Amino acid sequence: MRLVLAGFGVVGQSFAQLVKEKTPDLAAKYGFVPRVVAIIDSSGAVMDEKGLDVARVVTKKRKTGKVGQTSGLGAREIIARTEADVLIETTPTDFKSGEPGLGHIKSAFISKKHVVTCNKGPLGIAFQALQELARHNSVQFRYSGAVGGGTPILDFGKTCSTGDDVTRVTGILNGTCNFILTKMERERVSFADALAEAQREGYAERDPTLDINGYDSAVKLVIMANHLGLSKATVREVNVRGIQDVSAEKAWAAAEKGEAIRLIAVADKSGLSVQPSTIARDDPLCVTGTYNAVKFHCKDSGDKVIVGRGAGGPETASSLLRDLIEIRGSMSEATEQ
Amino acid sequence: MRLVLAGFGVVGQSFAQLVKEKTPDLAAKYGFVPRVVAIIDSSGAVMDEKGLDVARVVTKKRKTGKVGQTSGLGAREIIARTEADVLIETTPTDFKSGEPGLGHIKSAFISKKHVVTCNKGPLGIAFQALQELARHNSVQFRYSGAVGGGTPILDFGKTCSTGDDVTRVTGILNGTCNFILTKMERERVSFADALAEAQREGYAERDPTLDINGYDSAVKLVIMANHLGLSKATVREVNVRGIQDVSAEKAWAAAEKGEAIRLIAVADKSGLSVQPSTIARDDPLCVTGTYNAVKFHCKDSGDKVIVGRGAGGPETASSLLRDLIEIRGSMSEATEQ
Repeated sequence: MRLVLAGFGVVGQSFAQLVKEKTPDLAAKYGFVPRVVAIIDSSGAVMDEKGLDVARVVTKKRKTGKVGQTSGLGAREIIARTEADVLIETTPTDFKSGEPGLGHIKSAFISKKHVVTCNKGPLGIAFQALQELARHNSVQFRYSGAVGGGTPILDFGKTCSTGDDVTRVTGILNGTCNFILTKMERERVSFADALAEAQREGYAERDPTLDINGYDSAVKLVIMANHLGLSKATVREVNVRGIQDVSAEKAWAAAEKGEAIRLIAVADKSGLSVQPSTIARDDPLCVTGTYNAVKFHCKDSGDKVIVGRGAGGPETASSLLRDLIEIRGSMSEATEQ
Repeated sequence: MRLVLAGFGVVGQSFAQLVKEKTPDLAAKYGFVPRVVAIIDSSGAVMDEKGLDVARVVTKKRKTGKVGQTSGLGAREIIARTEADVLIETTPTDFKSGEPGLGHIKSAFISKKHVVTCNKGPLGIAFQALQELARHNSVQFRYSGAVGGGTPILDFGKTCSTGDDVTRVTGILNGTCNFILTKMERERVSFADALAEAQREGYAERDPTLDINGYDSAVKLVIMANHLGLSKATVREVNVRGIQDVSAEKAWAAAEKGEAIRLIAVADKSGLSVQPSTIARDDPLCVTGTYNAVKFHCKDSGDKVIVGRGAGGPETASSLLRDLIEIRGSMSEATEQ
């Protein structure tokens, strides 16, 4: 199975290493040998149709910041022209344009390649259009790692909706916000102090705007709602309020009453919203620290909650690999028929 | 799709009604029309190869306590001789002999019927033998509802192990015990008082022995461990201690330290155990009240927790239906090939 990797940051490198390490396992258990035939980053690309030495590319990237020379071709052309089966798209998320991921994914579909991605940008903007393009080209599109890192939240939602209806999804989808809110309520510190602490501990980016203002949660909510058929909304249609105005006093007052303030994302037939909300401390959804949690409200079978770490290079890479195995499974079924 | 129902208590009746109510949906979405051709309970059986009027059988059962007349044939013979595709086995669990469920399931396999069950007894005693018998007869065996009621815990575990290794499973698997322990820590009451309260509120059976002494948790643990390939143990090999000796003082002392005592079931390569253990209140596994929770420890992708209500007629019936839909899915694949 020939793979093109677009994006070679933390997740891309973790994925390349995971695939290399697991090659004997994948051959034995799932009957395929993955072969990375191209790696593209913002600086250029390296290609080898016989399969790249992934460890060498990682070393080079870490030393020089680049995977290879600038080639005459752009990334989309390389994706379109390379003989391969699957594009693994892990370039940085852009919430406004979805680029460069959006162009990469389209280019893969048009050239009849399956796509596995953890890039939230293209999904938040063009979920339905991308699904349609994949169907039109008879290829598969998987994006488990876009919500919940290594925690298979989207798959779980689909299982819950087999023979039942998921009528509502409620989630805590951003570990940075949850870390900050937990810190505020536990240590009675201000938002600013809790944010500074999150940055010191590496839980918040240097520019944490997209976490704090709720947009990261909103994009994940859009992906879940579209995936489960609850909505066709894009991120522009989500009613979003971030956590920047939550006061330490409010957080503390909630704790006194056995409650907590959390950044809660909600999707149902009536619409999508993300806002700081009060929930009972005993609610299984009410996780602390950097955990993510999602509650699926099911018509017949009741509420279920799934909890996990929502980020991390190796964790997200494991979701990409799971998606790849599932694509491989349906490829063999198609062949057998 | 012709169904035989063995067992017609709360879950069996919920399932029959759910299937009836969902028939148009099942035809439209999944392409099959379920038809109940036989219902067996401890008193006898009713049969109609054109499909029974399920509502009438429910009414009769509620009025007379029986589904029909005693027939000359035993339940196993009826299962073997009835022309049908799937046995839905929901008779009461017997932890020691596994009967009558064990005999019913074997009889179905030998007569080339798929089986869907929520009956823990046969699985706790003969998981591997039943799997082998199903394989040998080229039929499917599904048992989602046996662990977690309507919460698809077993399916989630399988998803987590795709391309990854689940190395350990930790769970709170009995809602009655968890209700009692939560009550003790919150209200500083004794075990006996909390148990009496659980019985008054309908969370504990009149004879709660199998919940309290840990055997219900042990059987569920055995099913999870076998399902995930972590162990081939039967319930006899689980190291079990119940909650009857947990003192209110201990429960209270744990709460003071931000901890809680829970009946924790653990399975890994080294063995299986169920015992009261102290865990951090912040651990997502540490649910309160009647919730069930399971943590999957995964080699690459980290820990994940799933939380839901572990029981209930309609909830468990929805798991049986999900299993049935999945069997139907794989039947059509087999036909198409």
